[in-house]
Amino acid sequence: MRKILLRIAYDGSAYHGWQKQDNADTVEGRMYTALSELCPEAELCGGSRTDAGVHARDNVVLCITPDEFRIPADRLPMALNRRLPGDICVCSGEERNEDFELRGAPCRKTYEYRILNTAMPDPMRRLYCAHVSFPLDENIMAEGAAHLVGEHDFTSFSSVHAQVQTRVRTIFSAEVERHGDEILIRVCGNGFLYNMVRIIAGTLVELGRGACAAEDIKRMLDAKDRQAAGPTAVPEGLCLKRYELL
Amino acid sequence: MRKILLRIAYDGSAYHGWQKQDNADTVEGRMYTALSELCPEAELCGGSRTDAGVHARDNVVLCITPDEFRIPADRLPMALNRRLPGDICVCSGEERNEDFELRGAPCRKTYEYRILNTAMPDPMRRLYCAHVSFPLDENIMAEGAAHLVGEHDFTSFSSVHAQVQTRVRTIFSAEVERHGDEILIRVCGNGFLYNMVRIIAGTLVELGRGACAAEDIKRMLDAKDRQAAGPTAVPEGLCLKRYELL
Repeated sequence: MRKILLRIAYDGSAYHGWQKQDNADTVEGRMYTALSELCPEAELCGGSRTDAGVHARDNVVLCITPDEFRIPADRLPMALNRRLPGDICVCSGEERNEDFELRGAPCRKTYEYRILNTAMPDPMRRLYCAHVSFPLDENIMAEGAAHLVGEHDFTSFSSVHAQVQTRVRTIFSAEVERHGDEILIRVCGNGFLYNMVRIIAGTLVELGRGACAAEDIKRMLDAKDRQAAGPTAVPEGLCLKRYELL
Repeated sequence: MRKILLRIAYDGSAYHGWQKQDNADTVEGRMYTALSELCPEAELCGGSRTDAGVHARDNVVLCITPDEFRIPADRLPMALNRRLPGDICVCSGEERNEDFELRGAPCRKTYEYRILNTAMPDPMRRLYCAHVSFPLDENIMAEGAAHLVGEHDFTSFSSVHAQVQTRVRTIFSAEVERHGDEILIRVCGNGFLYNMVRIIAGTLVELGRGACAAEDIKRMLDAKDRQAAGPTAVPEGLCLKRYELL
């Protein structure tokens, strides 16, 4: 058995998310189609299960093949890219030991959420930014984001449909910066619940427009109730920027 | 008769260029569809006729309506945007005198051509950048671009299919800059021939990879022969950034 760790970038606009589904076009589904031409027995394992419309600059997935599969790990990206559509790109391949497991491996994931904060929308950024036409105060947003840092129960910031054993996660950093006409939210943590970054973004927008105060984030966390936090922001602003294995 | 000057941004990826055609989806065609719901008699006039796949941050078009059309010029963008797809946005509307003509009006157009200069393509920039995987020297490209500035016969830098009275145009500035992993070509002039900026970009890439020298641009201009210049670069890297009426 061979294990090859692939790093993948994709534009999620056209897909029903990462995870393979029977009747929907997904990124993992496309990966399987490409891979099956090279090695029909290959299996894919792990990878951040991004939602429909969410992008990735650096998602990872483990490709498991029989020993007979002979393409070197560093040649596999090129071979796959020739069989993948232009909105999915395998950026690197790295041989791993047979005992390596991706699921459950300690990691640090960095997500970015882009908000275009202008009166008019921008057609060329519509697939990669949320558009907010009212003024946002990025300083209050940054102050609020800082309260998310640390180990917390993120029940208030996760979809009620998330099926997990624990909703405790650790956020290493949470920053908000203005770059020209965009506001960028960057959150780094050891794992994220279903819809978590999008609910964080939706809540920070509420702070930015003055609907609540930075300190309210603490009250929202304590409530452990999805109703306490803000709305789920649209998927197109979100991108998994970096998936580090620790 | 009313004349309203509209400024328009669009993602050209899905369209067969600006100009209305009978059997193809175009930006102008979509504008007519939206406009006809508000004023069936309205006509559109002018506008830079961008190619299939080329984008615009700021194209202009003159909307001509009967006097009975009552929507104020500054409200027309909102009314049109509600009827346009997300990849086209009318950014502003401005009332003009009845004797104003857009065609032939002195102007300054600024085009930008984006090149992603990395080993691997980027799915999230594939629609807005040309991808060049070999190293490019942006200093030689900038040196070559400088030779384009001034009034020249641009026959070598225009499609042989361009039907025009004269191929003499004035380039006010031509710059090449590296921004992170992208190379940006910015050309500003009083008018551009069919495919002209894409041929300039394709030629500057030839310079950047060392296939010819900066001074060769002068020889190419003098030749007045399309064969003398480099290839036509792909449309997706090109964007009309600014259309100034002088």
